Amino acid sequence: MDYYKEALRVHEEHKGKLEVVSKVPVNTREDLSVAYTPGVAQPCREIKENPDDVYRYTSKGNMVAVITDGSAVLGLGNIGAKAALPVMEGKCVLFKEFAGVDAYPICIDTQDTDEIVFIAKNIAAGFGGINLEDISAPRCFEVEKKLQDALEIPVFHDDQHGTAVVASAALLNALKVVGKNIEDVRIVVNGAGAAGTAITKMFLAVGAKHVLCCDKAGILSPDLTDVFTGAQIELAALTNPDCVKGSLADAVKGADVFLGVSAPRLLTQDMVRSMAKDPVIFAMANPEPEIMPELAKEAGAAVVGTGRSDYPNQINNVMIFPGLFKGALRVRAKRITEEMKVAAAHALAGIVTPEELSADCILPLPLRKDVADIIADAVAGAWRE
Amino acid sequence: MDYYKEALRVHEEHKGKLEVVSKVPVNTREDLSVAYTPGVAQPCREIKENPDDVYRYTSKGNMVAVITDGSAVLGLGNIGAKAALPVMEGKCVLFKEFAGVDAYPICIDTQDTDEIVFIAKNIAAGFGGINLEDISAPRCFEVEKKLQDALEIPVFHDDQHGTAVVASAALLNALKVVGKNIEDVRIVVNGAGAAGTAITKMFLAVGAKHVLCCDKAGILSPDLTDVFTGAQIELAALTNPDCVKGSLADAVKGADVFLGVSAPRLLTQDMVRSMAKDPVIFAMANPEPEIMPELAKEAGAAVVGTGRSDYPNQINNVMIFPGLFKGALRVRAKRITEEMKVAAAHALAGIVTPEELSADCILPLPLRKDVADIIADAVAGAWRE
Repeated sequence: MDYYKEALRVHEEHKGKLEVVSKVPVNTREDLSVAYTPGVAQPCREIKENPDDVYRYTSKGNMVAVITDGSAVLGLGNIGAKAALPVMEGKCVLFKEFAGVDAYPICIDTQDTDEIVFIAKNIAAGFGGINLEDISAPRCFEVEKKLQDALEIPVFHDDQHGTAVVASAALLNALKVVGKNIEDVRIVVNGAGAAGTAITKMFLAVGAKHVLCCDKAGILSPDLTDVFTGAQIELAALTNPDCVKGSLADAVKGADVFLGVSAPRLLTQDMVRSMAKDPVIFAMANPEPEIMPELAKEAGAAVVGTGRSDYPNQINNVMIFPGLFKGALRVRAKRITEEMKVAAAHALAGIVTPEELSADCILPLPLRKDVADIIADAVAGAWRE
Repeated sequence: MDYYKEALRVHEEHKGKLEVVSKVPVNTREDLSVAYTPGVAQPCREIKENPDDVYRYTSKGNMVAVITDGSAVLGLGNIGAKAALPVMEGKCVLFKEFAGVDAYPICIDTQDTDEIVFIAKNIAAGFGGINLEDISAPRCFEVEKKLQDALEIPVFHDDQHGTAVVASAALLNALKVVGKNIEDVRIVVNGAGAAGTAITKMFLAVGAKHVLCCDKAGILSPDLTDVFTGAQIELAALTNPDCVKGSLADAVKGADVFLGVSAPRLLTQDMVRSMAKDPVIFAMANPEPEIMPELAKEAGAAVVGTGRSDYPNQINNVMIFPGLFKGALRVRAKRITEEMKVAAAHALAGIVTPEELSADCILPLPLRKDVADIIADAVAGAWRE
């Protein structure tokens, strides 16, 4: 199927993907008097009296804002608020479909960090959580931090943390397949943008001890302050206190795991051959990965994952964000903690039974409808603790 | 039925009134590849190339933002963003129910005029129109004007113009019942806030020549600059160039029409008796009108309308805003013009057939589902002209 052509047809036929419908009956005059005036005045009064009742009488408690500024949409780059809308509508469809969570797209027409925070903060009254989406680095870090500091509802940049949680689950299960311990393995993360940074931190959070990060200029080292950005230097301080230098090829030599969120064809077969025995390769560049799975396997990779749906081991956020928000909303978490993300990673990894687990099955299929509830329970439990 | 109690029960049972659902199928992996990645990239590219395609491939063209700052909600006053949410959700339900127009509530957590405009302007990318709701006067005038100047989608403050259009339709039909010409009648509008101002202007737009406006301090007169606000002085200049002075009682003496958007029990039976023969009384204060219909009729009123559903001639915005937006969205109107509102008023008045028209039937029932399409056709036609 030509997905591009079919997508145009379907989007045009339905005029977009979202509609807003009533959960309450509106057939009779009485119905209207309950859903609208005069009855509606009473929930308003109760909420005015006790602001927490907004969760009791409105849709807030199950409603997520999917907010973007259109600055880093898919692989399309900075296409702006309007052109980002189809992706945001799609994200909202996934929220509803996979977790029964209502979500609404808000495309913000400014790319100034403080303005985005100001706008998001001041429209948050009607939302139980905020999913930031497709905002370019390094602004996305600041937007997320400032917004979370300003609000008592969870703020979650899915491109960072959703990806990081799924990748961590994939790592946990891949290491089971190759029989290695997470504390011992050497991991290389290539691409030190928003996703790579979050993935590295999550790998450390689930137990990894040896992670090296690379970007276009090679291995991130905390002393190379004229080469790397401030956020990258911070990341280097976490991962490379010994100031190891070198190229990606140097980094992967003897490594057990390669994870790429970078660009097509950056990992060669020779590099794979230079890795430790039974290497794990997560080549997540989209749509074309850092190395094609066939080539990676030919060069000796034991487990290969990509972002693609046409190969085994698709590493896809959709396994996490619906359930993660569902769980966070259920317990009215004020933020998404490290513990909640770790719990989500372990829960996702645990869905694959020992019998199912294999080199070609380290994650459940993205279409499984039971995943969100399992993630939600784990996340809710972690918040309660 | 105890509407307040029942409203709490229904709002709590359903956890609010809105949900966001998919218009496209999402059952198979192919569906997902069309609604989301990779297919969704193509509508994004097309919109980036040609921004107008946002109407072709997204929900924007049928989506209205219902925006409030919670400063003047129903008769409850300044209850803020959260407490306003049940009303805004209700409004969205009405949009969908009566016109098939999708609407989403945005409760803004600031009451600074420029900040409201800034926020609304910068989240407008995803909306085909903006319905301002329950924003207090005089800020509502400025918010509407500045926002409309900044955007190329219709911005419509329903509390002003929706009310004004319905009241104008009611006036046109009431005058048919009593056999008077709109150019000749003397009209008194009591309550010179947002609604009263808009109603007065619409009455003039549909042909009235003699309107006097009153507020708590009596008849608005352009020379009383120390008594009335700037907006009221402007209104006075339009309606009372001769600088007539006096109380409400003075104003209604010999008048043919009284319209109140003020407060309970301000119009006495003696005042009604002092009016011209066969007076028309629209007592629209909610929930208790300026005079109860029984008392008005006893004092000689020929036609009485109120905002209430338990009396004949309910003057209710729901007859206008769904169809008005439906028509404006259909032709992608850039704003709501005076001509569109006049067309809507005439279309609404025209729905009542000569056979149906009577002192107790000057407007269609608010629940009639055919009203929105008739209004939409009239509004769309007026924009095309």
